[in-house]
Amino acid sequence: MPEPFERLDRRVLVENRWHRYCKDRYTLRDCSEGEYFYIDIPGSSAVVPVLDDGRVVIVRVRRYLLGVDLWEFPIGGIAIGEDPEDVARKELAEEAGYRASTWQALARFAPYKGVSNEICHVFLATGLVRGEQDLELSEDIEVHITTVEEARARILASLEQGLGDGQSISALAYYERFRNRG
Amino acid sequence: MPEPFERLDRRVLVENRWHRYCKDRYTLRDCSEGEYFYIDIPGSSAVVPVLDDGRVVIVRVRRYLLGVDLWEFPIGGIAIGEDPEDVARKELAEEAGYRASTWQALARFAPYKGVSNEICHVFLATGLVRGEQDLELSEDIEVHITTVEEARARILASLEQGLGDGQSISALAYYERFRNRG
Repeated sequence: MPEPFERLDRRVLVENRWHRYCKDRYTLRDCSEGEYFYIDIPGSSAVVPVLDDGRVVIVRVRRYLLGVDLWEFPIGGIAIGEDPEDVARKELAEEAGYRASTWQALARFAPYKGVSNEICHVFLATGLVRGEQDLELSEDIEVHITTVEEARARILASLEQGLGDGQSISALAYYERFRNRG
Repeated sequence: MPEPFERLDRRVLVENRWHRYCKDRYTLRDCSEGEYFYIDIPGSSAVVPVLDDGRVVIVRVRRYLLGVDLWEFPIGGIAIGEDPEDVARKELAEEAGYRASTWQALARFAPYKGVSNEICHVFLATGLVRGEQDLELSEDIEVHITTVEEARARILASLEQGLGDGQSISALAYYERFRNRG
């Protein structure tokens, strides 16, 4: 007999270089059958890059799907078989043009648990050295240096200013918890 | 001539009662053509329910896609044509069994801007009165009352404890900003 919330069957409906869009048959709370449409993705890595003077590196990113620019920390998707810290390193270098001498894993969170199994790995990057960005043609990204307080204001945004970036808000919350613990 | 990051064409690949999975042809930064696979969804509403004594209502939710329980604030998807505050009201009542006399919009954020156009609307709910949950068969949800500090610890989780919930971390960040401003 199946348990509640058990997968009965998975079908991959669409597969591309970024993720797989799937449909599961699964058991509901009473063990009757339901269906679940979702994005299957190995995960993502987010980086909080902190300079020696305590300021942080944030990026202004054009977001095609929303038609706006968002303030964010560097973040990128993990491909199958990639290591989360390697992806964090790559995203910091490519999106922001920085390399870091020290990496520390701060947390893992689910950015959109209802529609994907994505787990975002949050890293603190310190010992930063500036280099050159290396953007893909799908990316339009400006690099900025701000205090943590200013980064928080921009990443959260106000109701009048527009949209906050959820993944960066989470990364910042983990960094602030780490910093408050000394 | 098209501008960079302009939609050329949209195809709905899969449509279901929760969202549409789409593929766009669009212009990249140099106006060459790219493709974008994403979830098209009207949005979501998250509720931070605060009792008269300052404690908050959080929920422990079984997450099928991740195979774990997460600590969350009540949150739910908006269907086409639905009003965000109405959805917030419905989710608070159904998931947590509470009704509120006062509603205040705190913010809007993008939970997973790379894979969806979803915008999450965050509401503060006060003047709470307890009633009964009304769960769907796809839901398995426990209701808990905690201090804000304890809610933060549970929602963020530690690396050892497991996964934080990004959408609830964001909702909490907006509530704390609101509270700090007095």
